[in-house]
Amino acid sequence: MNTSSRRSFLKTSVAGAVFSSSGILAATVSAQTKKWDETFDVIVVGSGFAGLAAAIEAKKAGANVIVLEKMPTAGGNSIINGGILTATGCPQQKKHNIEDSKELLEKDILVAGNYMNDVKKVHQMVDRVLSTYEWTVNELGVEYLPDAIGQEGGHSVPRYVTTKIGSGAGIVNKQLDKCLELGIPIRLRTYVDKIIRTANGVEGVEVFEGYRFPKAGSGRHKSLKANKGVILCYGGFSADVPYRTIQDPKLNATLDTTNQPGATSELWRETSSIGCLQAQNDWIQCGPWGNPHEKGMGIGWQFNQTAAAEYGLWTNSAGKRFVNELANRKVRADAIMVEQANGRKCFAIADANGVKPFETQRPGMLNKHLERNLIFKYDTLDELAKAQGIDAEQLKQTVEEFNGYVKNKKDPVLGRYINNEQLPVETAPFYVGELQPKVHHTMGGLITDDKCMVLDVKTDKPIKGLYAAGEATGHVHGAVRLGSVAILDCLVFGRMAGENCAKS
Amino acid sequence: MNTSSRRSFLKTSVAGAVFSSSGILAATVSAQTKKWDETFDVIVVGSGFAGLAAAIEAKKAGANVIVLEKMPTAGGNSIINGGILTATGCPQQKKHNIEDSKELLEKDILVAGNYMNDVKKVHQMVDRVLSTYEWTVNELGVEYLPDAIGQEGGHSVPRYVTTKIGSGAGIVNKQLDKCLELGIPIRLRTYVDKIIRTANGVEGVEVFEGYRFPKAGSGRHKSLKANKGVILCYGGFSADVPYRTIQDPKLNATLDTTNQPGATSELWRETSSIGCLQAQNDWIQCGPWGNPHEKGMGIGWQFNQTAAAEYGLWTNSAGKRFVNELANRKVRADAIMVEQANGRKCFAIADANGVKPFETQRPGMLNKHLERNLIFKYDTLDELAKAQGIDAEQLKQTVEEFNGYVKNKKDPVLGRYINNEQLPVETAPFYVGELQPKVHHTMGGLITDDKCMVLDVKTDKPIKGLYAAGEATGHVHGAVRLGSVAILDCLVFGRMAGENCAKS
Repeated sequence: MNTSSRRSFLKTSVAGAVFSSSGILAATVSAQTKKWDETFDVIVVGSGFAGLAAAIEAKKAGANVIVLEKMPTAGGNSIINGGILTATGCPQQKKHNIEDSKELLEKDILVAGNYMNDVKKVHQMVDRVLSTYEWTVNELGVEYLPDAIGQEGGHSVPRYVTTKIGSGAGIVNKQLDKCLELGIPIRLRTYVDKIIRTANGVEGVEVFEGYRFPKAGSGRHKSLKANKGVILCYGGFSADVPYRTIQDPKLNATLDTTNQPGATSELWRETSSIGCLQAQNDWIQCGPWGNPHEKGMGIGWQFNQTAAAEYGLWTNSAGKRFVNELANRKVRADAIMVEQANGRKCFAIADANGVKPFETQRPGMLNKHLERNLIFKYDTLDELAKAQGIDAEQLKQTVEEFNGYVKNKKDPVLGRYINNEQLPVETAPFYVGELQPKVHHTMGGLITDDKCMVLDVKTDKPIKGLYAAGEATGHVHGAVRLGSVAILDCLVFGRMAGENCAKS
Repeated sequence: MNTSSRRSFLKTSVAGAVFSSSGILAATVSAQTKKWDETFDVIVVGSGFAGLAAAIEAKKAGANVIVLEKMPTAGGNSIINGGILTATGCPQQKKHNIEDSKELLEKDILVAGNYMNDVKKVHQMVDRVLSTYEWTVNELGVEYLPDAIGQEGGHSVPRYVTTKIGSGAGIVNKQLDKCLELGIPIRLRTYVDKIIRTANGVEGVEVFEGYRFPKAGSGRHKSLKANKGVILCYGGFSADVPYRTIQDPKLNATLDTTNQPGATSELWRETSSIGCLQAQNDWIQCGPWGNPHEKGMGIGWQFNQTAAAEYGLWTNSAGKRFVNELANRKVRADAIMVEQANGRKCFAIADANGVKPFETQRPGMLNKHLERNLIFKYDTLDELAKAQGIDAEQLKQTVEEFNGYVKNKKDPVLGRYINNEQLPVETAPFYVGELQPKVHHTMGGLITDDKCMVLDVKTDKPIKGLYAAGEATGHVHGAVRLGSVAILDCLVFGRMAGENCAKS
């Protein structure tokens, strides 16, 4: 048999035994032989930012949509996310007279990504930065702080807005409201066990309903057909120690994660095994601003980032700055780990002026940090240093030098961006929190085309009926994701996937 | 049907349509229904260092072995490899009074690998460093230069030996002789199209015999059964522009490769699609020492590395050193690309003393470089600079500074290791070659256990009958492979895979 007739044989054979190694062996099984328990137009897997955005757009485009979520509550990791959204061109930026542009944002993303990003994808996303912010406000009714504009590491200028309630729930809850309004069911405790790929593309999923995380095989088995397609928004795997240590053996169980326990790899593995193209799964980001004295994401990152990194400074226990506090997350997390490997702890420090923007941005949170012993306050730097085991003389010298940079609006040593509104660190009380990197975000994942369709690992062509968006996908952030760009990524490509799938 | 009975149904069903997405759908096809054209105990895919080492050990362990090679000649990329082998503890090192240890080699590998290596694998390899060198000498009869000991970037001390003929052919040809002696057939122009994975594991391969690279589907289709197993030694994909740009979009068609044209991805894609675990495929190394004035690996890298990096210096067209000439390959390649992005060319420079070790190590090659206009020689640094468009005053100052470091045995600026035998760069004639990174080696790949068995992407358990070694595998080198460790990797794990498969 020659190749082409052999291929067409593989495609057309319906019943019985065809011998092949391909992941699309289900190709040999006719869809007619499958009994489906339920049928939808569009099945969305995952109920975070991306999944809910996809569901909303698919429904608005006329499709009959369902959202599947394995956990007992909706929102995935998004609902515990920090709630900061890159919004170049937004009113808050204008209020603070910050000059910014899509081009500058795009460049920042590519530089942090070590140019491992797909430039076309970055461009698609950046092009929608302002319209996405506006969509959340006008379509969803999301409320942001009207005056606060923040700057995460690796960004050239302050450009993120913060939800009023100070977390991703400020967006997710509005998305859930919209789903309710549109009549989109969110089916909780529904574990996707298999994605059904045949010669026709992806036709549906097999699930366990009533699944009790993390009990493998719990719940009732069911098969759900998707007439138009399945949209994969299953998120990352930062909480999955075995899989993440295969990708990067350094990220073992000794490191905590900011993620919820459901951020596991089973669908990363499943999509691999059915021949979906994946790349860059080993680029896994640690949030440098974690606090070791609480589990998971917690709240301590807020002071460490929003007060100290943006309006204060970071030092090691020798009292020296060791990294540009506004470098990208990988640079900062690596720098902290090097300090720790050399027996030094790392600290985030801000004074009474430095915590003011933080208090505006996250009202009440400073006290909560103090109550939980995540940060401590002192009348002098001497006391702070002594209590925390930091070299006091060196710390005072470091702060004095840093204050010189603030006055000159230039940090010649570490190249830290000096915010227009930064004041010298000299006004009591002085606050300090400890720094501990925690596994936070997986940059790689499914490779999709410009319609968010997942590509086949053997042909690089789109797989009919299979879409993806959000942390489950790669090529948007490349080597390193910048802070506050995750929500943008999820909303832009989630919406696009939903619309394209519904119209397919 | 509950989970466990469903699973056992999937496993035991023999004929007909089972509906599942798994890559091991062939599980549902009985091996008995397959007609095999030929049967062997062990099928080795690829005829480079690893494949031939596997075949030799499998045969010596009593197995009936065949080696499949898609290209019209044997040896893969190994035969055009530089022929340098890390050999800690070898006689050449002792002659030069170089102190070294397995522990130091292991540390160098982990540091360059950014600790993304599997430490157990590195340990397995390093433990066999001297015995592998001795095996090549005593078992294969490989001839190395008896006096030369070299140092590639990232190694703490000189520790590589060089084959007398100056390339990997010095080893591969001896392996091929051994195969002939043992009666192991090397079947050329045999393209592996499918790897047959069933519920029993991997049972064989489907091939096209008489394949004419790169014509897809050329040749006659045939199926080959492997009673004991298939050993995958199919190498890397540095010559495959579409696949490598998916892994790292920077490495596009504008970059040349050192690899032979057959270094393509089809079996990387095939193993993905049958559910083999892969990781770190996006870590792709450029050889920093390439020469832009010839295609492919060529010979110009020899002067750039062995003369200039080890006994001379590298500068940019501004006349300044820009990187530690003995940093690891990634650091050096990245540094050159940054210079180029800033409009500067990069050069490798050595004087009459600096080329002496090179002339010992690769007799006659210096003249060949000159004849091919890959390097040029001048009586003074002034003339060299003028002819090559380098800033002459700065170059002379740079060389003078460098010579100071040589005298003090310490480079305080870039931390370059100063070889005991390094002399100041001051004796005419002066030689210069240009530097151009070329895509060279893929660090990631199939993940194997301590017996070289390939793991399943869903379970992390070994797949019965499937082994792998060499560049097709990951976790040995992590982020960056050190120069001269590739052959060690291929021989250690190739031999191990062959022996384990034959005895399985």
